[in-house]
Amino acid sequence: MPKKAEFGKRLALLKGRLREKKLDALLVTRDVNISYLTGFAGHDATLIVTSGKSYFITDSRYIEEAGDSVKGFEVRLARRSLYEIIRDIAAAGKLRRIGFESRDLPYEIAVRLKKVLGKSSFEPAGELIEELRAVKDAGEIALIKDAIRLTHGVLAKAKSFIKPGVSEESLAGKIEIEFLKTGARPSFELIVAADAGSSKPHAIPTARKIKKDSYVMLDIGCMLRGYSSDLTRVFRVGGARPGMEKIWKVVRDAQAKAIELIRPGARIADIDAAARQYIKGKGFGRYFGHALGHGVGMEVHEKPNIAPMSEGRLVSGMIFTVEPAIYIPKTGGIRVEDMVLVTDRGCEVLSQ
Amino acid sequence: MPKKAEFGKRLALLKGRLREKKLDALLVTRDVNISYLTGFAGHDATLIVTSGKSYFITDSRYIEEAGDSVKGFEVRLARRSLYEIIRDIAAAGKLRRIGFESRDLPYEIAVRLKKVLGKSSFEPAGELIEELRAVKDAGEIALIKDAIRLTHGVLAKAKSFIKPGVSEESLAGKIEIEFLKTGARPSFELIVAADAGSSKPHAIPTARKIKKDSYVMLDIGCMLRGYSSDLTRVFRVGGARPGMEKIWKVVRDAQAKAIELIRPGARIADIDAAARQYIKGKGFGRYFGHALGHGVGMEVHEKPNIAPMSEGRLVSGMIFTVEPAIYIPKTGGIRVEDMVLVTDRGCEVLSQ
Repeated sequence: MPKKAEFGKRLALLKGRLREKKLDALLVTRDVNISYLTGFAGHDATLIVTSGKSYFITDSRYIEEAGDSVKGFEVRLARRSLYEIIRDIAAAGKLRRIGFESRDLPYEIAVRLKKVLGKSSFEPAGELIEELRAVKDAGEIALIKDAIRLTHGVLAKAKSFIKPGVSEESLAGKIEIEFLKTGARPSFELIVAADAGSSKPHAIPTARKIKKDSYVMLDIGCMLRGYSSDLTRVFRVGGARPGMEKIWKVVRDAQAKAIELIRPGARIADIDAAARQYIKGKGFGRYFGHALGHGVGMEVHEKPNIAPMSEGRLVSGMIFTVEPAIYIPKTGGIRVEDMVLVTDRGCEVLSQ
Repeated sequence: MPKKAEFGKRLALLKGRLREKKLDALLVTRDVNISYLTGFAGHDATLIVTSGKSYFITDSRYIEEAGDSVKGFEVRLARRSLYEIIRDIAAAGKLRRIGFESRDLPYEIAVRLKKVLGKSSFEPAGELIEELRAVKDAGEIALIKDAIRLTHGVLAKAKSFIKPGVSEESLAGKIEIEFLKTGARPSFELIVAADAGSSKPHAIPTARKIKKDSYVMLDIGCMLRGYSSDLTRVFRVGGARPGMEKIWKVVRDAQAKAIELIRPGARIADIDAAARQYIKGKGFGRYFGHALGHGVGMEVHEKPNIAPMSEGRLVSGMIFTVEPAIYIPKTGGIRVEDMVLVTDRGCEVLSQ
């Protein structure tokens, strides 16, 4: 749980963004964003952030917890309809332009709120908080490092489980239990893919068994105290197969090319291009179809997206994956995924 | 995985609902509803159900899996933008009135689709599939019974873990591991709350330790082969405390009052009222703030909602929780939660 001062800073940053957008208020409905601003980990809460007072609205199931832990917000019990409470706060605060999280809020609720708010303008505001969340503060960086450290420990254990005869499913189950034993939990459906199975980027673990000469891809990560990790490693069970070794080297080198460019101010699309062009140059371009990486934090996939069409530039404090890959259909794939922090002068690979 | 005949029946029922609503098609975007209609368990798929042909649209990551398993739908690869594919299907099929899942689809996407669809009317269609899902077929009832049976087994194990000195967190972790060992997984954040912690309906497990005279509330459930369970039990570690025993009895009796009324045709609001009025009559009305229950199936919270303002009547095949409670702030709470199936003549408590 971050310190109170950090919640205060986040709220102040958001208020700055509202001023830039000329919004009087933002209705915050996404759980993860509410947690980011307040530390509240429950569901069914709603925030109204204004330049002055801000409100935390929840129902009787959570009101006691909210009263204990949410600072800087006036806590309101949703005894009546949430729509009416929002209307009343808007009227009392003379809120004329109210933004909402339009990539999240369902159509029907947005339309009802538009009606209820009558004179106020209720406007799609995209993903303002997701944009703030892309840049991590010191507390968040420390928490993400903890999650990565723990994942390294589980990877070391997992390595000892990789033996001929063990199925992907059973290996995935063992890894999951290792995470739970440490008090973390998987932050996504763990990927354990041996041989041909690893040719699909999002392979679901199957009954396929590891063989004496298998290459096994593990894409694993955990959620620990609210923050995630996400790493991919390939393990070789037996002797080297030249074809696999070759693409493995190309992928590693492509990753290094991308990481070299990571520093504040770099164009995000250039980071993706560095790895993609390198893989293309080696003749494997058609076997790498997905984005190079994605932000990791309270969600395992968040901003910034590191992809060919990404706009914008890197900012110190961003944390994201760099995960080039080559997938050869029916044969197998290699993906290497590390997490990188943009520092003031360059970058720090957090996971090596 | 249900049988193909069941998917066919579900699709036919949905087409009937579309006719009633005079819709030419329904755009289905919620993963769980797609899974209900097709058995497909991946993400990033979209359905268009029409009175004639129906379409299953997914991207290259899932197309192989979809081709293998989805019957009764024409599978389309989302090579271009999903918006364009939907527009083309609407044009080719002369679909004039297209409904969408307006309680789910984010505002921004709905607005873009409305624009893209031009001449067709794109209309909020609420939760048509969730309404169908409220009534379970024989296959679903069997799967839910399996999930409940497994949860009973884990509860018995959990009882043996409850000892003075064990923290809520560590107990929750152990219970989670028990579920995983059986091949199930928790269907929600398990609630383990000792003493004062149990005065919050949705308590998050903490470092609080179980004491010699604790009352420990476990609200646990699992997801097994796509279907959920959800049960709450309170365990007493040491001797009886009169205050707690008194509210425990009131809660049990309130539950019995509600269950007595469950049968096809009963007003849902009356079921809630039976328990609520009883608790009120005993002087604890202000300590029971949430709904009496909720449907359980592919989701752990689904229709029907059993609450004071619920409209509608019970139908044979519905499965829902009955979970009255009394929460005394700073002292502790008692909740007893069972799952009940509405049968042709009355009901069957599935979890006792």
